[in-house]
Amino acid sequence: MEPAVAHARYSTTVNYSGPIERVGLQIAMKAEAQPLIEALGLHYYSAIDRLPHLLFASGRVGQIELHIVIHGQDNRFLVDRVGTENATLAAFKLIEHCQPNMIINAGTAGGFQNKGAEIGDVYLSSGVVFHDHRIPLGNFREYGRGAFPVINAPQLLHDLSLKSGVVSTGNSLDLVAADLENMVATGAAVKDMEAAAIAQVAYDQQVPFMAVKSVTDLVDSPCDVGEVFLKNLSLASGNLANRVNELIVRLGNGVRLENL
Amino acid sequence: MEPAVAHARYSTTVNYSGPIERVGLQIAMKAEAQPLIEALGLHYYSAIDRLPHLLFASGRVGQIELHIVIHGQDNRFLVDRVGTENATLAAFKLIEHCQPNMIINAGTAGGFQNKGAEIGDVYLSSGVVFHDHRIPLGNFREYGRGAFPVINAPQLLHDLSLKSGVVSTGNSLDLVAADLENMVATGAAVKDMEAAAIAQVAYDQQVPFMAVKSVTDLVDSPCDVGEVFLKNLSLASGNLANRVNELIVRLGNGVRLENL
Repeated sequence: MEPAVAHARYSTTVNYSGPIERVGLQIAMKAEAQPLIEALGLHYYSAIDRLPHLLFASGRVGQIELHIVIHGQDNRFLVDRVGTENATLAAFKLIEHCQPNMIINAGTAGGFQNKGAEIGDVYLSSGVVFHDHRIPLGNFREYGRGAFPVINAPQLLHDLSLKSGVVSTGNSLDLVAADLENMVATGAAVKDMEAAAIAQVAYDQQVPFMAVKSVTDLVDSPCDVGEVFLKNLSLASGNLANRVNELIVRLGNGVRLENL
Repeated sequence: MEPAVAHARYSTTVNYSGPIERVGLQIAMKAEAQPLIEALGLHYYSAIDRLPHLLFASGRVGQIELHIVIHGQDNRFLVDRVGTENATLAAFKLIEHCQPNMIINAGTAGGFQNKGAEIGDVYLSSGVVFHDHRIPLGNFREYGRGAFPVINAPQLLHDLSLKSGVVSTGNSLDLVAADLENMVATGAAVKDMEAAAIAQVAYDQQVPFMAVKSVTDLVDSPCDVGEVFLKNLSLASGNLANRVNELIVRLGNGVRLENL
């Protein structure tokens, strides 16, 4: 067992079973999705009632239907709609519209150097939690943490040479002490802005979920997160696209949830 | 002009116009909604595809149809589904299902003593922002703040003796330094866990929005927030129910958005 896994107290992998005919892939930012869309030769469309900013791209890859949703642009500030609120609605619409047998949330993320993360690493979720939902009031505490189930996929982890770790979600790019304390408590290796929100919708809708995250910056290394994020976004997006492409092609070859 | 308004740099009131035939009222916790449901003699139902935890209650009040949505219970931790992610989905479903001409988010909140807030006060939003979406990266910064439009309602403010202030939303019950810094920057008077998320959906769907928040605890007074929250929840819920009841009855008498 990897040390990162041994130290992750909020690992929540679940053994699912069943066929995979339709795969939902949620990606927050268009820049993160673009290399993959190109590699797979997909085309965008936006045809969802009431949510015209959501970008969809669908196509057949081998034996599966692949349905990608991207959060789209905020029309006031002209930036990608990152964060948990837009992630929630996009995930719900992806499920309602495309009825996937599993959801993958792919994206870039911060990594913990002290968990062995390096720039460009690609992680598969061993668990997924929130770090900025601090509600120290009885059962609300664990409700706030989330700790939603994720797909147990030892074969993927091995064959695609992914790292395994708990993904921790919050709505800020920076990291304050209270967030860090929560991430230490959960044993998180990777910090993002969407995974737990998508996992919550997937859990409620009984759709198996996994997150695949490539590391743009090291959150426990002193630097300007914004600057490092932008510098490494292209490298990390490229690595992410390669691995997710391999993953999608493998799913297209025909594999069941219990054999991931 | 009230001093609280003069210091609120993120006041974003908008003059809307049009008839009010259907009113959407979103309340996160059942305990907050219960006194109002009883006062208006409404009955619960949950009939929304895919989201059986959402509680709806509808009825006619004078000339309006009133549609209440409550976030419902988390089935793992048996607590109310507070916070922005569940607020987003509930707001979207309220709009899709009931097509209201306006949305009111009513709930309890923390207040700033240094803005004049006292336990039991009821505030009407003069603006609504996020304090826990820190994304210091170009336009993402203001995207993260939110600052969504709210209904300008000077007559309501006066006739119902409400206080006016910016409502600031985050997913934690406690308050860390970075959150406080954001709230000082926006001039927030009230701190809650849902308003800005609901306002974002309402803005995207072009439904005029207001928040009505009653104060359970003073966030800038040193104490155990959880303990004080529970102690004052009943008082604050009672005050909230009284004011929201008055508000609903007034809407039921027939009033247009431009005359609120």
